[in-house]
Amino acid sequence: MQPPYKTRVSELFNIDYPIIQAGMIWCSGWRLASAVSNAGGLGLIGSGSMYPDVLRQHIQKCKAATDKPFGVNIPLLYPSIEEHMQIILEEGVQVVFTSAGNPKTWTKQLKDAGIKVVHVTASTTFAKKAEDAGCDAIVAEGFEAGGHNGREETTTMVLIPMVADAVKIPVIAAGGIANGRGMMAALALGAEGVQVGSRFVATPESSAHDNFKNVVINTPEGGTMLSMKQLVPVRLVKNKFFTEIDEMEKRGAPIEEIFNHLGRARAKKECLRATLTRANWSLARLLPM
Amino acid sequence: MQPPYKTRVSELFNIDYPIIQAGMIWCSGWRLASAVSNAGGLGLIGSGSMYPDVLRQHIQKCKAATDKPFGVNIPLLYPSIEEHMQIILEEGVQVVFTSAGNPKTWTKQLKDAGIKVVHVTASTTFAKKAEDAGCDAIVAEGFEAGGHNGREETTTMVLIPMVADAVKIPVIAAGGIANGRGMMAALALGAEGVQVGSRFVATPESSAHDNFKNVVINTPEGGTMLSMKQLVPVRLVKNKFFTEIDEMEKRGAPIEEIFNHLGRARAKKECLRATLTRANWSLARLLPM
Repeated sequence: MQPPYKTRVSELFNIDYPIIQAGMIWCSGWRLASAVSNAGGLGLIGSGSMYPDVLRQHIQKCKAATDKPFGVNIPLLYPSIEEHMQIILEEGVQVVFTSAGNPKTWTKQLKDAGIKVVHVTASTTFAKKAEDAGCDAIVAEGFEAGGHNGREETTTMVLIPMVADAVKIPVIAAGGIANGRGMMAALALGAEGVQVGSRFVATPESSAHDNFKNVVINTPEGGTMLSMKQLVPVRLVKNKFFTEIDEMEKRGAPIEEIFNHLGRARAKKECLRATLTRANWSLARLLPM
Repeated sequence: MQPPYKTRVSELFNIDYPIIQAGMIWCSGWRLASAVSNAGGLGLIGSGSMYPDVLRQHIQKCKAATDKPFGVNIPLLYPSIEEHMQIILEEGVQVVFTSAGNPKTWTKQLKDAGIKVVHVTASTTFAKKAEDAGCDAIVAEGFEAGGHNGREETTTMVLIPMVADAVKIPVIAAGGIANGRGMMAALALGAEGVQVGSRFVATPESSAHDNFKNVVINTPEGGTMLSMKQLVPVRLVKNKFFTEIDEMEKRGAPIEEIFNHLGRARAKKECLRATLTRANWSLARLLPM
């Protein structure tokens, strides 16, 4: 059976397949984003690990590498958010995915500039807020997603039908989707597109270190767990660092101790060198990739 | 589009729709099981809350109430397991779903008696073990399922494709499925049937108290959470009891303290009277319903 590739999501972005490559720090620069867009999906530059001038370079390189639509993912709590948005507007980016913040803050300004705006949420409540803020679509991200997650632990299977019922704008499903079966399931649940992350980490065009790519490929079923729930929930590979954090949480360690153990720039080190955890942009030191 | 109702699961049980009503303590007696079987699905008597003589009564009443196939769910760690199995054989039950134990222990004996045997699992590893033990099918239950869950927290969306690839016998998906969209999604993921629990709790034929049914209906998105992970992971409604357990776990309370706070017969009280938590058969005092 031919999947229904033509949906409101594919029409919104003018793409062949309603498949979005998630913006992921240290992994999704212009190479990955342009490759996905050239293949008929929507590539996203993950700006959360980029200084403003680095973001500008990636946008310019992406424009040179594809004449297809692409977008930029911007975590709204990014410290240089004003500069990032200015670059988005100056460079004529057509699509922005926002996350980790209030969609009211920036959506109108971006929409007034003719930009298509999508907000990432993990609950029906925030999906409605994104719709009210004027977003063109929302990403509904389930508990099983990589990176940061909502505290409510609502899974993709449960979340998508509720969000699809609650909003009129199209829903892009995320979390646990890595192939055609997952995409078909998401469409059956009421989504009109999918956002895929980890699967795209493990591609030649991803800027992650090969060690990190191999961890993504080789981590077995049950090999990740949502952790650091008191600090900021994030899905970790079960390795030495995870075990240390898990032991701290089980003995009720104070949040400062967990924060100190996390340290700085861990996500960068791990994506680019040491392969310890999954992306953790909000706590990582922001350095050019 | 007409869903593919005819699958190896519907053929295995000779039912019209590959929809299984989960065996649930204090909720699924002969009334619910026979109603589901009469409607074209497969009803299961949940034996985990029944003394042996009560189970025999429920089987006999179910046989009187339907001439369609029905089954019995048996948790293998049930203390009177030998008596339960003897009754199954004596009463000519055609289908047995086993859970919470090693499928090797009973499958051969049941199969030799012509009984169809299905084992409930939460991982690919145990799904394979169930296949090796000679089971006719397996239930693969995701993290979002009610009642007890696996420790690995693998969601339905992630678990089903992996299990479907790993075993040759048909896979029944469970966890977060409550309507046609969830069923279609499960089939897209590679399952050939679905097992539905909570949705059947909230039916007139369910033996749960109306208060408990109303909690199942009215609990909002994000209103349950997997808890008691050190003791035996179980999905709880976020109420006073959940908060107490959650606080104990966050401060690293010893397992004995959590066990004592849980107390005895809580699941029975809650399903039949007080509506505090979700079914918790393995720790509940086993009394006739």
